[in-house]
Amino acid sequence: MISNHHVGADALQKFGDKNKNYLRDGFYARSQAEEKRCLDLELNVLMSIEDVTTRVNAAVKSEMTVEQAFLARRAVMAEIEKESLDKTGLRSDVVTLYQGGQYHLYRFKKYTDVRLVFAPEQQIAFYGGDPDNFEYPRFDLDICLFRVYENDRPAKLQHYLKWSEAGVSENELVFVSGHPGRTSRLFTVAELEYVRDQRLPYALERLHGLEVLLSSYSARSDENARRAKEDLFGVQNSRKAYIGELAGVLDPKLMEQKQAAEKKLRDAVAARPELKDAVGAWDRIAEAQKIIAENARRYNLLEVGHGFYSDLFGIARTLLRAADEKPKPNSERLREFGEAGLASLEFQLFSEKPIYDDLEQLTLADSLSFLAGKLGYMDPLVQKVLAGKPPQERASDLVRGTKLRDVAFRKKLYSEGRPAVDAARDPMIELARLIDADARAVRKTIETQSEAKQQAHAQISKARFALEGTSTYPDATFTLRLAYGAVKGYEENGAQIPFQTTLEGLYQRGEEHQNQPPFDIPPRWLKRKGRLNLNTPFNFVSTADIIGGNSGSPVINRDTEFVGIIFDGNIQSLVLDFAYTDKQARAVSVCSQSIIEALRKLYDAGALADELTGKTKRK
Amino acid sequence: MISNHHVGADALQKFGDKNKNYLRDGFYARSQAEEKRCLDLELNVLMSIEDVTTRVNAAVKSEMTVEQAFLARRAVMAEIEKESLDKTGLRSDVVTLYQGGQYHLYRFKKYTDVRLVFAPEQQIAFYGGDPDNFEYPRFDLDICLFRVYENDRPAKLQHYLKWSEAGVSENELVFVSGHPGRTSRLFTVAELEYVRDQRLPYALERLHGLEVLLSSYSARSDENARRAKEDLFGVQNSRKAYIGELAGVLDPKLMEQKQAAEKKLRDAVAARPELKDAVGAWDRIAEAQKIIAENARRYNLLEVGHGFYSDLFGIARTLLRAADEKPKPNSERLREFGEAGLASLEFQLFSEKPIYDDLEQLTLADSLSFLAGKLGYMDPLVQKVLAGKPPQERASDLVRGTKLRDVAFRKKLYSEGRPAVDAARDPMIELARLIDADARAVRKTIETQSEAKQQAHAQISKARFALEGTSTYPDATFTLRLAYGAVKGYEENGAQIPFQTTLEGLYQRGEEHQNQPPFDIPPRWLKRKGRLNLNTPFNFVSTADIIGGNSGSPVINRDTEFVGIIFDGNIQSLVLDFAYTDKQARAVSVCSQSIIEALRKLYDAGALADELTGKTKRK
Repeated sequence: MISNHHVGADALQKFGDKNKNYLRDGFYARSQAEEKRCLDLELNVLMSIEDVTTRVNAAVKSEMTVEQAFLARRAVMAEIEKESLDKTGLRSDVVTLYQGGQYHLYRFKKYTDVRLVFAPEQQIAFYGGDPDNFEYPRFDLDICLFRVYENDRPAKLQHYLKWSEAGVSENELVFVSGHPGRTSRLFTVAELEYVRDQRLPYALERLHGLEVLLSSYSARSDENARRAKEDLFGVQNSRKAYIGELAGVLDPKLMEQKQAAEKKLRDAVAARPELKDAVGAWDRIAEAQKIIAENARRYNLLEVGHGFYSDLFGIARTLLRAADEKPKPNSERLREFGEAGLASLEFQLFSEKPIYDDLEQLTLADSLSFLAGKLGYMDPLVQKVLAGKPPQERASDLVRGTKLRDVAFRKKLYSEGRPAVDAARDPMIELARLIDADARAVRKTIETQSEAKQQAHAQISKARFALEGTSTYPDATFTLRLAYGAVKGYEENGAQIPFQTTLEGLYQRGEEHQNQPPFDIPPRWLKRKGRLNLNTPFNFVSTADIIGGNSGSPVINRDTEFVGIIFDGNIQSLVLDFAYTDKQARAVSVCSQSIIEALRKLYDAGALADELTGKTKRK
Repeated sequence: MISNHHVGADALQKFGDKNKNYLRDGFYARSQAEEKRCLDLELNVLMSIEDVTTRVNAAVKSEMTVEQAFLARRAVMAEIEKESLDKTGLRSDVVTLYQGGQYHLYRFKKYTDVRLVFAPEQQIAFYGGDPDNFEYPRFDLDICLFRVYENDRPAKLQHYLKWSEAGVSENELVFVSGHPGRTSRLFTVAELEYVRDQRLPYALERLHGLEVLLSSYSARSDENARRAKEDLFGVQNSRKAYIGELAGVLDPKLMEQKQAAEKKLRDAVAARPELKDAVGAWDRIAEAQKIIAENARRYNLLEVGHGFYSDLFGIARTLLRAADEKPKPNSERLREFGEAGLASLEFQLFSEKPIYDDLEQLTLADSLSFLAGKLGYMDPLVQKVLAGKPPQERASDLVRGTKLRDVAFRKKLYSEGRPAVDAARDPMIELARLIDADARAVRKTIETQSEAKQQAHAQISKARFALEGTSTYPDATFTLRLAYGAVKGYEENGAQIPFQTTLEGLYQRGEEHQNQPPFDIPPRWLKRKGRLNLNTPFNFVSTADIIGGNSGSPVINRDTEFVGIIFDGNIQSLVLDFAYTDKQARAVSVCSQSIIEALRKLYDAGALADELTGKTKRK
């Protein structure tokens, strides 16, 4: 199984300790016995899709209030998922498509024994660091290889992609199968205005603070840097993505297009009496969005957890809520506690991944200050949360006082339920309890208004299907999508950017920057440069329609051969969140040839290269 | 003249270009002819202080509205300054003490021909970088030596400090003369709450964004890093200071002390009929603070310039306003255009300091986005400012379109006044014009309310003088203050932190961090380590009452000998903004001995060391 190094980073980071930094230094298992089992990595393979729109919509009666409708919809979705799980044993998720226009049941086969086979040094996987992130041309070997096990033996898989040793040529048609996370192309103008005026400014404010916090913590020592690397990368990556998105919605041209398209559709709907249900949908979305806007800050702070940035707090809340939710009938639980998802939730909850007290205290104290700044220090809930102490002291007391870093203790509380959770008097659980009523209340408000939007979007989708068919595809939902595009360079500031780079380009870039971080080339790559064919293609771009979540997507040619792996989009691709364009927006991939070249000539991993290219089958 | 490297950094940075980085690499003038004249560095030496409280207060009549009072006070202050300038030829500033309790006229002799003699590498001046900033123990040679000229010859100065080659010993009494910038010890509880709930969260939000922006720009290339270094240091330094201050006001204990002290004073005032004027003063401050709170965001964005982070914009606004203000009578002008300060203003305005278009575009675009996020994208003023373009495009058009990087052009517009400024149709000046009415209006609101607070503070001060005499000293105002303290270590987390460090400690710290940035020791220091007496004291701490602005303050012993130079305070010292404590708060200094040791043994600057220690007089 191949993915990006930055996708595997979480797993890599969890192996490491003060003496061994696999994330930074890489890893290669010379034999199967050396393959390292990941602590809590779960892979899901899509097995089937079933349209359950009719059944989901049938559960919602016209006389229901929006809140009742939300509960009914949540109940029927949990019911469908549970039935499917019981029947097939497969992970089963009901997915909302077209912002509520359709509901599909996705079934996944789960693999939880995933072992690391190979990872390069992070410095070549993420060559150019934050400055080159979301940029092109690029020179990154952003890959990571795993082997999937079942019953302690390598899984026997029927379907897999053959490896192309030829790579791509310019203008070639390629396909990308992946899990784009979230797009907002079907958003109404009111929703886009919210994104522009509130969601992105708030998100950036928070990320800027975290980036400064984690960067200065990391600068204190190598060990700090190792501990925070994964979080910091995530923060920087999101920050850059949001800046690109903000640039999109701050472009009056894009908003004018959206306004014109919305007006055209509204006019067409108004002209067709049979579509009258949809006439008021845009206004209903705007109204719901207004209420969401008023509650979003509180929701993010209390429910999403922006006021409590701490793994231990997350564990505490899961235990507290599990004790409340599990005794309820499946259909009445908070969605994440539905039967169909419990196994995955437990897999995470009982992970032995390391928790660093200093980092926990740092992020918790910082987020408590953020909470106080946003809700107001004198807010009664803030006063209760701080308990008469400065944020640093409160965070330190909580982290030092909790027993939740002990996985056995978590298991005990989880299995014994509420009496044990209550009796534990664990300070972190008590903190979660302190805010739970408020957090649930604001979540209910947000969920109810989201349901209202969803109903209105369903009406718009129905109208759009009637007018245009399903020529528009749904917004991304982290589920599988097959995209396609051409391998193609582009023009930027008057210059033509070529469709691919070579290994030689890497060394040139290193020289231009005197081999200084983040443009330093790893020692192995410097020492063994002479072995490489420097003309080997390294990275390439295509016009495939991707977005965050597509990291690790294979790129295949018309013979279904693996020619590369997506690891980024250029900065111009971030506008794809709101509208597709192939003018400058490009998906960035590692070429299949450079992977083999590096494995053979730099990493002494010829055996692995042989296995990948089908020359041998590894024992 | 000795100061800190980080104080001289602005001057150092302005010398550099793509090929020569004096800020990073240091500088030593081996002869007087090699001394480098600073582009726009102005030194002011305090010559006299005169109490003008009676005259200032006499200008304000009891029947005046607050707004009239503000204008009358501004007018009499400008009048006093102008009279003094005309009479003495000295720079003359009326300074507001005790938040309005007293007014003093300060006269300064100005030196504008200041030449660089010596600066070490920035890496040893700021050893440990941001992680060690505001921390102790420290190992920094944060110094910079200049020579002051008059009539193209070294100025002849009567008074100067003798150099101590013995340094300090533990518990020794020391004195510090310097210019602490701003403290808030006389703030009422309402004002402190504003600092806690609004001023600091806003300031940190803005600084976090700028730190991320400038860091990622700097990471792209060495040249970028050089261009942005000064700005980035300022941002990181303020960020760390504000975090320390925020921790202070988020400590319930400090606020309880403040509340108790305020109650005690209010009760004492209420009990003394002759102090009845002051009874309502606290409420009047709270009311004014409320209006300030409502207007602060707009004031910061439009008037302070947080929405227009660009040197070119600053120049544009100065030219626009100079054309409006200079024709007015001196007493009616905006304070910065008063006759007494014009020479200094012109010195800055006509500086040949380099302006980097890419950095200007970057910060201007970012601050325009910040403006849109804070005032709302649809705010009519924001719409006018953006002129139908995305922020990046607008910023790029403005920076590329303006002619203000040409100093001769600035001089022409400044001297020809309004007709020339209007006729220029310079896009940056037109932008300044676009927001000028709004910026002036919100400034007026803030200034009027500040006057109201000042009147109330004057009443409180009068009452406090009556009750306690002048045993409390005024809040810091960037004017000269003589502080004192003991050379003394402190306890932290159970460990005793010694009062001084040695050169040996520097090398140990470097080793602990594998000599990795920001803990890398400059090559010269590594190569010549053998020459040094490693027991030489390097940095020391004292309990002197300092705050930001004290950087570069000489520390002198009871024989008035120079024993060191303040360059920082520890993180615990940041609470000194609100209250004095000698428990852990410490001022951090470079020891006089380490300066001489480094000059002689590392920098081949024995001649300079001889001159400093009075062994020779340099030609």
